[in-house]
Amino acid sequence: MTVHIVVLAGGVGGARFLRGLREETRRRYPDGNGNSTARITAIVNTGDDAWLAGLRITPDLDSILYTLAGVNDEGRGWGRVGESERVSAELREYNVGWPWFTLGDLDLGTHIARTSWLREGLPLSAVARRLSERWPIGVELLPMTDDEVETHVEVADDGTGTGTRLLHFQEWWTRFRAALPAVRFIQQGLETSAPAPGVLEAIDSADAILLAPSNPVVSIGTILAIPGLRDRLLAADAHVVGVSPIIAGAVVRGMADACLSAIGVQTSAYAVARHYGVREDGGLLDGWIVDDADSASAGELSAIGLPTEARPLLMRDLDSSAAIAGAALDLSLGRRL
Amino acid sequence: MTVHIVVLAGGVGGARFLRGLREETRRRYPDGNGNSTARITAIVNTGDDAWLAGLRITPDLDSILYTLAGVNDEGRGWGRVGESERVSAELREYNVGWPWFTLGDLDLGTHIARTSWLREGLPLSAVARRLSERWPIGVELLPMTDDEVETHVEVADDGTGTGTRLLHFQEWWTRFRAALPAVRFIQQGLETSAPAPGVLEAIDSADAILLAPSNPVVSIGTILAIPGLRDRLLAADAHVVGVSPIIAGAVVRGMADACLSAIGVQTSAYAVARHYGVREDGGLLDGWIVDDADSASAGELSAIGLPTEARPLLMRDLDSSAAIAGAALDLSLGRRL
Repeated sequence: MTVHIVVLAGGVGGARFLRGLREETRRRYPDGNGNSTARITAIVNTGDDAWLAGLRITPDLDSILYTLAGVNDEGRGWGRVGESERVSAELREYNVGWPWFTLGDLDLGTHIARTSWLREGLPLSAVARRLSERWPIGVELLPMTDDEVETHVEVADDGTGTGTRLLHFQEWWTRFRAALPAVRFIQQGLETSAPAPGVLEAIDSADAILLAPSNPVVSIGTILAIPGLRDRLLAADAHVVGVSPIIAGAVVRGMADACLSAIGVQTSAYAVARHYGVREDGGLLDGWIVDDADSASAGELSAIGLPTEARPLLMRDLDSSAAIAGAALDLSLGRRL
Repeated sequence: MTVHIVVLAGGVGGARFLRGLREETRRRYPDGNGNSTARITAIVNTGDDAWLAGLRITPDLDSILYTLAGVNDEGRGWGRVGESERVSAELREYNVGWPWFTLGDLDLGTHIARTSWLREGLPLSAVARRLSERWPIGVELLPMTDDEVETHVEVADDGTGTGTRLLHFQEWWTRFRAALPAVRFIQQGLETSAPAPGVLEAIDSADAILLAPSNPVVSIGTILAIPGLRDRLLAADAHVVGVSPIIAGAVVRGMADACLSAIGVQTSAYAVARHYGVREDGGLLDGWIVDDADSASAGELSAIGLPTEARPLLMRDLDSSAAIAGAALDLSLGRRL
C-alpha cells in the first residue's frame, strides 16, 4: 500500500523539511531503485508571490523546487547554486524591478518560463508541474491556490507615530528584513481564492498530514486561510502533526517573530501550538513536535490534550532533517493505530 | 539653424549607417562638445519583432540602440559585446522559446525591461525612448509604429511541390538563414497599423530624408507600407535619397536577395532603385547612391531622371560609413538649393 503524506510548507524551512521527509521515506518505504513507494504532496504557500519586472516570482515554490532538485544555494539559503546576476545588473541600469531584490540569471530562467506559461493561460498548478518535470524531485508540488494572492504589510509610519503605510510583503521582508514593526498583514485575493486542483483531494486521501516548521503566520497561516482548506483538514482521516519553527523562544531562521507579534502571538513553541489549536478544542493539531529545549511546554501541551514530543529540532543536515520528519510521521501515523 | 535628418532604417545596415551619419554630423555641425547640432531621427522597422518566451523582442531597434551606444558585438554582427547565455541555457531545459534563437543575458535585460513597460501599457515608442535614455546615443529612435506587426513567410512545402507552409519571419531568417525559397511575406497587423507618434511630424520637418542600406523588402519596404507613411514622404519638403544595399549584384550583408526574389525584384542596385521608384514617375527617390562597381547603372538611372552617384559603399569602419552618409546627405540637401 502506498503511504500518502501531505505537507503544508513555506520556503526554506519547508524545503529542508521536505528533503528530510523524502530521505526518510526512501529508507522506510524503499522501492528498490533508491526512491520510495510513498507519495509526498507538498501544498506550498504562494502568499509571498509577486509581479516583478513583468515576471511572476514564486519564492516558496522555487525554494522547494531547487532544494529538492539539489540545485539550491545551501550556504546563502535561497536561490540557485553557482548563480550570477548579469541580467539584474542590466535591469538596474534601466531602473526596472526592485534594486534590493536580486533576480539571479539561472533563477530568471525559471521566472521567464513560468511567466510565459502563465501568459499562455496555464494555471500556476500546471506551471509548477511543468517546471518540476525537469528534475526527478520525488515530491508533488502544489501551489496552495491558482489565484493570485498579494500580501502587503501595514507598518507604523515613520515620524508622526499615528499614521501607517503599506509595503509589499517582499519589500518589508527582503528590503527591511522585517525590522519595521508590522501592524497587520493584508492579503489581497486570499479571501476569494480557491484551493488549487488536487489540494483538497490530497488532504482527503492523505495518511499523514504534516505542518512543516515554516512561518506560522505568512506561510502556514496563509495556506490555512484559503477558504475551505482548514475545514477539509479538520475533516480529514489523517492526523495533523506540526513541527515547531520556534526553539527556545527564538526563530530558527527567517523572521517569524516579527510576524507572530503582529498577530499577537508569542514567539514560543507553546504559543504557536495554541495558535494552530488543539484538536480536542476544535483546533487543527493532533500532534506537535518541539525541541528538547522546550520539553517543559511539551508537558504542558500534553496535559491539555495535545500529544507533544520533544526532540532535537535543528535541521543541520539530511540525517537530522530525516529524523525530524520521521518523528512527525510517526506521531501522525501512530495516532491512527 | 538645426539641420533635421530623418533616416528610415532596418537592423545592422541601418545601425552602421546611423553611426556613420552621427559621426559625419559631428564633424559637419559641431556643437563644441564633441556632438553635433544636427537632429537625427531614425524611423526603425519593427516588422521583425516577435513574442518569444513571453518577452517582446525588437531586433532592429536593439541593433541600432546597441551600435549607437557602442555596446554591440561588432564581430558577431548582432547583440551585445561580452554577452553570455546562462538564462538561455535554462530556458532550453524548460523547453521554452526557440532553441535556435539565442537570447543573451545582457540582451534579456533589455527584453525584460521593454516587456514590463509594454505590459504596464506604455506604447513601444515610449519604451524605445526610455531604453535609449540609458545611453547618450545622439539619435532619436522611433519605431515605425506602436502597433504590433508580425511577419510570416510563406515557403514552398518540402516534398510535394504544390503546397506551402507559413513560418515566422524569425524562423525563416534565423533558423533557416532564408534558404527556403519564399513565396510571399504576410505581415499581420501592417495594413491596420498607424505611424508611431512623431513619425509623420519628423518627416514633415525634415531637411533631409535618407533610406539606409537596409533590406528593401522586409526593413525599408515594411516601413513604407505603414498606411499614410509613403504619401507623407512624397509630400515632404525634404528630398529622399537612398543608399543601395546591393553592390555588384550581391547583398553586402544579410539575405536581402532571398527577399527581393520573393517579390520579383532583381538583386541589383538598379532594380532596387526602380522598386523604390523615381520621383519624376511618382516614385519615392530624389537621389540614389550606388557603389563604384555599379557606375553603369548610375548612368542609366540618371538618364531616366534619378540623380545617382557612384562611390565606395562598403561600410568598413567609422570613416567609410561617415563618408557614405555624408554623400547621401549632400545629395539630399543639395537638391534643395
